[in-house]
Amino acid sequence: MRVVLASASPARLRILTAAGLDPAVEVADLDEKAVLDSVAHASVGEKVTTLASAKATTIARRIAGAHPDALVIGCDSMLHLDGELVGKPADADEVRRRWRAMAGRTGELLTGHAVLRMVDGEIDRVAEGHAVTVVRFGEPTNAELDAYIGTGEPLAVAGAFTLDGLGGWFVEGIDGDPSNVIGLSLPLVRRLLAGVGVTVTDLWQR
Amino acid sequence: MRVVLASASPARLRILTAAGLDPAVEVADLDEKAVLDSVAHASVGEKVTTLASAKATTIARRIAGAHPDALVIGCDSMLHLDGELVGKPADADEVRRRWRAMAGRTGELLTGHAVLRMVDGEIDRVAEGHAVTVVRFGEPTNAELDAYIGTGEPLAVAGAFTLDGLGGWFVEGIDGDPSNVIGLSLPLVRRLLAGVGVTVTDLWQR
Repeated sequence: MRVVLASASPARLRILTAAGLDPAVEVADLDEKAVLDSVAHASVGEKVTTLASAKATTIARRIAGAHPDALVIGCDSMLHLDGELVGKPADADEVRRRWRAMAGRTGELLTGHAVLRMVDGEIDRVAEGHAVTVVRFGEPTNAELDAYIGTGEPLAVAGAFTLDGLGGWFVEGIDGDPSNVIGLSLPLVRRLLAGVGVTVTDLWQR
Repeated sequence: MRVVLASASPARLRILTAAGLDPAVEVADLDEKAVLDSVAHASVGEKVTTLASAKATTIARRIAGAHPDALVIGCDSMLHLDGELVGKPADADEVRRRWRAMAGRTGELLTGHAVLRMVDGEIDRVAEGHAVTVVRFGEPTNAELDAYIGTGEPLAVAGAFTLDGLGGWFVEGIDGDPSNVIGLSLPLVRRLLAGVGVTVTDLWQR
């Protein structure tokens, strides 16, 4: 059964590859704002799940001809901080402001997933859900924060930090699943796969 | 300043590399049992710190000629489960027994670190400490556990699981620093480096 990751994120692909899968990658060109507007009053968990589902459904339709019996995994992640949803920072100044607000405090990283099982080019079964991981931010000095910004890393990612790169020095700890923070929750995807009748170990390529 | 990782663990090297360092690797051929016997009544945290320190000191002496101004990072990790320290499993049967005991429960992963700053071939400053991360194990089915054992992965690692490989599917979550579970706590090493007068971002190679 072909596994298709409906995400452009190299970090998500790395997680799946390190965990034994060899997915194809297909990227949905989604109007995320329009999807979010349709669930404006939903909880954050419902929002990330709705976006993950919209991405997976778009890709399922696209690949139905080429891969009629695929498993499509959709993903969406957001950082929830002080009651606000935080995306990618616009520039270095915003990274500095964000880190001043985050340092020494906690945020919630939410990842939503949708797993679609396709049979003969049709979506046969669907399982969806989201997971929350609390992130406890460290307190980088001004010099450390300037060096971090200088690498460009925090400018490229939602929440202005990574757990699996240079940002790992500045995260004191988490409460929850670490792969969820990087954008693909392995234990949640395992449960969703079981929900569509697939045992994850049957997908391992080694 | 040359950074030297006093550990044979490829997972530890991967963490440091992903976090921007480019360490040399030197492996101490230590009589760990003799070191542990010398601190038989110490706490688990003191035990892993003592082992990390013994490894780092051994390597510091060895490289003093070639790298007189190096930073040496020593590491040791243990899983603490039901009041017992758990190392690498002996065989597949032991992996099965361990996972039956761990499934759906928690263990504590302890990593000790010693950071030695060498000046002119002498150990000039030392900082040591340990960190604890709680690991909440999932409940793999018998078929999943058999498949996991079949890959060989759980046989090669202390505690019979990994967080950064196939085992990630079977860890529901953690409370603490994820890099600590893999064997090298980035936030703790950052603090220990500061303790010997080094800013971690000055060591970044990108």
